[in-house]
Amino acid sequence: MPILPATAIKELQDALGPKGWSMETGILATHNTEARGKFTGDAGMVLFPANTDEVAKCVVICAAHGIAIVPQGGNTGRCGGAVANGAEVILNLKRMNRIIEIDARDFTATVEAGAILKTIQDGARDRDLLFPLSLGAEGSCQIGGNLATNAGGLNVIRYGNTRDLVLGLEVVLPDGSVWNGLSKLRKDNTGYDLRDLFIGAEGTLGIITKATLKLFPRPKHIATAWVAVPTPDAALDLLALARRETGDGIAAFELICGFAHDMTVAHLPGLLAPLSAPADWYVLIELTSPRPKDDLDAVLTGLLATALENGLASDATLAQSEAQRANLWAIREGIPEAQGFEGGSIKHDVSVPVSKVPELLVRGISAAGDLIPGIRPCPFGHVGDGNIHFNFTQPLKMEKDAYLACWETLNRLIHDIVADLGGSISAEHGIGKLKLDELARYASPEKLKLLRAIKGAIDPDGMLNPGKIVK
Amino acid sequence: MPILPATAIKELQDALGPKGWSMETGILATHNTEARGKFTGDAGMVLFPANTDEVAKCVVICAAHGIAIVPQGGNTGRCGGAVANGAEVILNLKRMNRIIEIDARDFTATVEAGAILKTIQDGARDRDLLFPLSLGAEGSCQIGGNLATNAGGLNVIRYGNTRDLVLGLEVVLPDGSVWNGLSKLRKDNTGYDLRDLFIGAEGTLGIITKATLKLFPRPKHIATAWVAVPTPDAALDLLALARRETGDGIAAFELICGFAHDMTVAHLPGLLAPLSAPADWYVLIELTSPRPKDDLDAVLTGLLATALENGLASDATLAQSEAQRANLWAIREGIPEAQGFEGGSIKHDVSVPVSKVPELLVRGISAAGDLIPGIRPCPFGHVGDGNIHFNFTQPLKMEKDAYLACWETLNRLIHDIVADLGGSISAEHGIGKLKLDELARYASPEKLKLLRAIKGAIDPDGMLNPGKIVK
Repeated sequence: MPILPATAIKELQDALGPKGWSMETGILATHNTEARGKFTGDAGMVLFPANTDEVAKCVVICAAHGIAIVPQGGNTGRCGGAVANGAEVILNLKRMNRIIEIDARDFTATVEAGAILKTIQDGARDRDLLFPLSLGAEGSCQIGGNLATNAGGLNVIRYGNTRDLVLGLEVVLPDGSVWNGLSKLRKDNTGYDLRDLFIGAEGTLGIITKATLKLFPRPKHIATAWVAVPTPDAALDLLALARRETGDGIAAFELICGFAHDMTVAHLPGLLAPLSAPADWYVLIELTSPRPKDDLDAVLTGLLATALENGLASDATLAQSEAQRANLWAIREGIPEAQGFEGGSIKHDVSVPVSKVPELLVRGISAAGDLIPGIRPCPFGHVGDGNIHFNFTQPLKMEKDAYLACWETLNRLIHDIVADLGGSISAEHGIGKLKLDELARYASPEKLKLLRAIKGAIDPDGMLNPGKIVK
Repeated sequence: MPILPATAIKELQDALGPKGWSMETGILATHNTEARGKFTGDAGMVLFPANTDEVAKCVVICAAHGIAIVPQGGNTGRCGGAVANGAEVILNLKRMNRIIEIDARDFTATVEAGAILKTIQDGARDRDLLFPLSLGAEGSCQIGGNLATNAGGLNVIRYGNTRDLVLGLEVVLPDGSVWNGLSKLRKDNTGYDLRDLFIGAEGTLGIITKATLKLFPRPKHIATAWVAVPTPDAALDLLALARRETGDGIAAFELICGFAHDMTVAHLPGLLAPLSAPADWYVLIELTSPRPKDDLDAVLTGLLATALENGLASDATLAQSEAQRANLWAIREGIPEAQGFEGGSIKHDVSVPVSKVPELLVRGISAAGDLIPGIRPCPFGHVGDGNIHFNFTQPLKMEKDAYLACWETLNRLIHDIVADLGGSISAEHGIGKLKLDELARYASPEKLKLLRAIKGAIDPDGMLNPGKIVK
């Protein structure tokens, strides 16, 4: 661990006060280790500024000493984007966790970057409104991290990615100045789109300190079904049919392979198989409607009847109660945990054009089987967005370590297919450190040149999260 | 008119062939004059490349000779963004007007930048799909221009601005290389958001040559009403109520002042006043639903009943036929034409947070009346987006020229109020040359520095549309 200059430490301590920093081993360990454990840093100091002004002070002090800053939210990332080395400091936003305002007339929430996603969801719900971003880590992730990674999640098909849910931002820039773009405007064409440049930039261009988010009328009706489909191709036809028949009322449309379903029901306690006969593929479809009076069950029943008639589905069941609905979602959300019972898992967070999902699955499963005979493909995910969590469970009789040693080889195989299909090697989770080399490999020279030009223009001295996204 | 170097002209002619350029006076006049007539350029050559490769060649040749390029679409802009001087050449995309593909499974249209907006709308409709961008110039504007200006229009409240309707772009960069970001992906987190940087950049960072657009299920039901509301404040309460009661089924929500209504009905032939008694303010509200079976009339009737009960509306009528609906829209869309019968009009394309619209109107009308006694305010527009076309018609007895001489003084007054309310001085139409100084005046130093840094990083030699957006 390189030691930070004592003068810098002193200046930061003085600027932030006793609550505003820590060099304690236990606290540092928490902030130096990514949740999944794949990345560990060794920063010697973590900063906890209480407001935008203090963030700006940190940036100015660190810049003067040539110390780079790694911004950090709930530290729930997957790609090492918030991991710092000993020459850097971590700047964690957790003390800036206020909901500043919820405006029911403007349908907006103005929040500090450290606000927990679930707190924002709850704040909106208390006003009979919806903030639709929803993902596994919502109880601990911070909105600033969601913004920095343009988080996806379960409701993208209806409400878009995080990017689509933002009206304005406040950002501390690499020179310590503050860009106040905390706008509530729904139309504003006054120059380049700075907002979207900071969203998804993983803290490499600025530190997001506040955001104005879009809210929506809260759904009043939900209808959820578990559907057996013969093939992924049929699932896509069902998706297109559903978009039309439900009037774009789909809130979630998740593909689950038979293996994922069987394994989850077998390993996790209390889960019930929704259908009596096994199938190779399932779809979990959920409709929502914010209209006070609506009959979604009729809409969904009509859709499923057409699907059964047309051979797009072989069986289906509608959740008749909240408990039944919870069971369906518990199967879907339990897949990663259940995979743990079956040994090692090699994962891919990829997307392709929606229509290319079947080809991705066929080619990917075939190539993986050629590489590792007996490998058990476990694809599932947001097929409505073309975003498949293309996981592979180890063969039954292989050693876990030997299997996991194939991680990069299998990644290369799958990513090559994804690239060939015009897809993305990081649909939801970003680049961070994990996919830095993969991005350099798959992005065009023109794209890489643009990324570097932008980084060079906005953070010429590399003061913010260096070595993430672009080298 | 400065003369272009003969060698450059020859190289461009050779690269593009006889159909690919013009130096004819009549053709140049068309491309040198903006539709509204406020801006006239004097470029001596206009280029008509047939494909991306030819666009790239133009960029390389011009760069080698130090000639800047002004990209141009349908030339329907309002801010001089596509006007060129004699040292520049115009590059018009009109020959690149193909719909390359409409994919009903991916719900996408892939188009060349010169495709006319209406052609895209029609192509989508032929597949029972919707491309929702809709604006006055849709019969002649090109999608490339819509993209370059992030056009707004009538359906923003439901479907967003142009930015929200795009999945991918192909862009010729200032060095003649091509960024192929023509993606169909709905989730992709691999580096900075280049797509949104080019959208709204008015051709100053690159020349958009192709785009992949989002399509939607086509609405199957429409319900339209004309509502008298006591105040703009009541209109906003009605909007919030309507968002909730219709389940975000609003396709348009337009505010029209009594003066605009009266004048339009009086001057334009064949229009009927929708309600029997006059009112100070009206709202045109339209719901759409893409569900095959739906009863929007019941939803809208229910909403209006609640509004009448709560005092948010004093009278209302539902369109009972397509002819009645057309009449309502003809009033709304006829306002600018009708204003012509009443003398000079000074215009503002501004937006504020939705909830600040009433304050904007009160303060703006009061300030304008103080400046020019007898001035007749004529505000109308997309109040659902906070975007008011804040027009002012001249006093009855004033000379038109004397009135129009107040244009900049009145602009300053209104823009100061807009800025004070956290609004935008260009909601829909962009900056171009028209609002270059206004942007420099109202934008923060941090924002201007970022805009210049981005321009400098991507177009360091100022080869593309110089002097637009930033100096």
